[in-house]
Amino acid sequence: MKIAGILTIGNEILQGYTLDLNANSISKELTKRNIKTTIHLTVPDEIFKIKEKINKFIQKDYDYIFITGGLGPTHDDITKQALVELFNAKLIFLKSRHQEIIKKFNKVKLPKCQSEILDISKPLENKIGTALGMYFKYNGTNIIIMPGVPIEMKSMLDLYLNEIKSLKTSNNNVITINTSGIYETKLSDMIKDFIIKYENYIYFSFLPSYEGVKIRLTDLGVGGNINKIKDELLHLLDKYAYGLNNNTLEMTISNILIKKKNSLSICESCTGGFISKRFTDIPGSSNFFLGSIIAYDNSIKNAILDIPIKYLDKYGAVSHQVSELMALNISKKFNSDISISCTGISGPGGGTKEKPVGTVFITIKFFNKIVTKDFIFKVDRNSHRLMTKQAALFMLWTLIK
Amino acid sequence: MKIAGILTIGNEILQGYTLDLNANSISKELTKRNIKTTIHLTVPDEIFKIKEKINKFIQKDYDYIFITGGLGPTHDDITKQALVELFNAKLIFLKSRHQEIIKKFNKVKLPKCQSEILDISKPLENKIGTALGMYFKYNGTNIIIMPGVPIEMKSMLDLYLNEIKSLKTSNNNVITINTSGIYETKLSDMIKDFIIKYENYIYFSFLPSYEGVKIRLTDLGVGGNINKIKDELLHLLDKYAYGLNNNTLEMTISNILIKKKNSLSICESCTGGFISKRFTDIPGSSNFFLGSIIAYDNSIKNAILDIPIKYLDKYGAVSHQVSELMALNISKKFNSDISISCTGISGPGGGTKEKPVGTVFITIKFFNKIVTKDFIFKVDRNSHRLMTKQAALFMLWTLIK
Repeated sequence: MKIAGILTIGNEILQGYTLDLNANSISKELTKRNIKTTIHLTVPDEIFKIKEKINKFIQKDYDYIFITGGLGPTHDDITKQALVELFNAKLIFLKSRHQEIIKKFNKVKLPKCQSEILDISKPLENKIGTALGMYFKYNGTNIIIMPGVPIEMKSMLDLYLNEIKSLKTSNNNVITINTSGIYETKLSDMIKDFIIKYENYIYFSFLPSYEGVKIRLTDLGVGGNINKIKDELLHLLDKYAYGLNNNTLEMTISNILIKKKNSLSICESCTGGFISKRFTDIPGSSNFFLGSIIAYDNSIKNAILDIPIKYLDKYGAVSHQVSELMALNISKKFNSDISISCTGISGPGGGTKEKPVGTVFITIKFFNKIVTKDFIFKVDRNSHRLMTKQAALFMLWTLIK
Repeated sequence: MKIAGILTIGNEILQGYTLDLNANSISKELTKRNIKTTIHLTVPDEIFKIKEKINKFIQKDYDYIFITGGLGPTHDDITKQALVELFNAKLIFLKSRHQEIIKKFNKVKLPKCQSEILDISKPLENKIGTALGMYFKYNGTNIIIMPGVPIEMKSMLDLYLNEIKSLKTSNNNVITINTSGIYETKLSDMIKDFIIKYENYIYFSFLPSYEGVKIRLTDLGVGGNINKIKDELLHLLDKYAYGLNNNTLEMTISNILIKKKNSLSICESCTGGFISKRFTDIPGSSNFFLGSIIAYDNSIKNAILDIPIKYLDKYGAVSHQVSELMALNISKKFNSDISISCTGISGPGGGTKEKPVGTVFITIKFFNKIVTKDFIFKVDRNSHRLMTKQAALFMLWTLIK
């Protein structure tokens, strides 16, 4: 198995002002390709330190060294200088590249150094910013240098992984199955025998979060067929497993609604726009999502959604009856096939003895069918809104799939 | 200046499945206390590696070594074993602590190892989970061992920082001024002379993002009065500086609206609920926020918001006229003092030659005043929604402050 080391350069990260996202995204891609990352290291913007660490990585025969940060035009950006000194190299200026970038970003004063690379390296182009990346091989070690801005780094990494033939085909040695609507303990009980059956071929791990539990399957490379095993597990979990890998429940629902040509409207109270926001994160959501009413204040529930005052007084805004009427009325007003509503107490304030902080009612109206459920999520405000969002989506998905 | 090293233990992080949040939050706290973090290091769950790295840290005379991860009860969790071997120590079992934890979490089968610490160390209690932390001093180096779960680590770190007298009083040696509505280059031009005036006392840095530019002031500890200098800078930037440190523009606006007892309604199109979501993230937002209509589809703009079809046809949904009418009508319907509306093309699809992807119109209605502005943000979909949100908030803040 090939091994990799990741070196992140930057005082900002060591001071805690910037979170290092790059080491994580590089590692993720390498894992997919069966390359093992054995170290993440962050050092300050100091030439001596950078040289020392890269030198150690080379001595330890890493197959890949990924270096990010310190490629910008300011005095802090000394990664290239460190490499020049360490490898006894020279900087060469790529004139035509420089002119292209000036044109593209319309920046007349772009410093020349932004188009300089080591003479021993090949350029790695930047689709998003101006800093140029590069890569070269030294004593059997592949050294890849990229900028620190995560979005630029990520696009450059994709470029590199596509350029190098041996890295092109990502083996599907890891598959994640995403589930919702079931707790970790119950899920683990449910597939106990399944795991025993296949544990010689696949390593199973459980990753719980407020949006559900993910099950990660890692192929141990001893002859099991991970895709077949995955399909069998999906079948076993068909009530809960909504997608694979980076697929969210929002995306799964979105695909179904577009396919079925169903329209959706939402009436939110405690989630305050969060559910709508999540759907509209998806490009193309305008194909099924009509819109929402966020009836945060009771006056809006009455005046805009026509929930009678006597309803609000009798049952309370956080109740089965009001939740149901919210879903019915938004559906009528927006003329949608499907509607979601929710009303709850996300806290920290607002709880009573009968309806403690954490209480929430969720209704899904699906054509003529209507389902309301209530939950108590005893977590902080943000997590409450996240769990409410996911519970609503899970209820919806269960009805439409 | 004292120096610290941070060691993170865990295969999950090196495989890219888990993002290391702990190194960042530890560094942030240390920076506040004038302790310089000079290394972040992540190693696998391997006893040999862990011993080797801690040993190196000690030899390099770090004042503090923070170690996170590998304290759980499973076979992967070998941090304690590594420490036992490295320091020739023994594990001792804290019986009464164990019984307390069993009671607290109602877990009868809690493994004993969760209440074991090194005999040379003091315990660091866990307010959230079951793993016990510890700390001790070795050859002048303070070694602090904490669990990897970020929320548990953070609470334990706070405990440690409060326990150690020398770390208790955090000097206000770093202040961040948050600005919006002005680009980095213009801002930097504007305060050029100010920086020259004080650069012997304060180190200034600029942190640009899609929500605005933050200016960080770091006290160099040579007799300048950082609070006075901060106040002078705030005065100079009074059009743009909305808050300090972790204060968001949402919070600043929220505080003003609650104080003035003004009510707010929102009509969102391209942001799809994002602005409302951000306001309702804040506990107490029900004191000013009435609700919203998300008019994503044109049929909703017409049927619910009473935008005439001929308006939509003549000017287009993304136009000055429609944006203004959205703000006027939501304000009327919701009977609010203030309203926000926005309509735009976040992309990737939907652009035309006249109105390219990135175009957005934002209107603020503040009692009888109404202001509409248009922007073109040439960024990806998510960033477009973020910039639109922030531009709307900046326009609102400018009117109400």
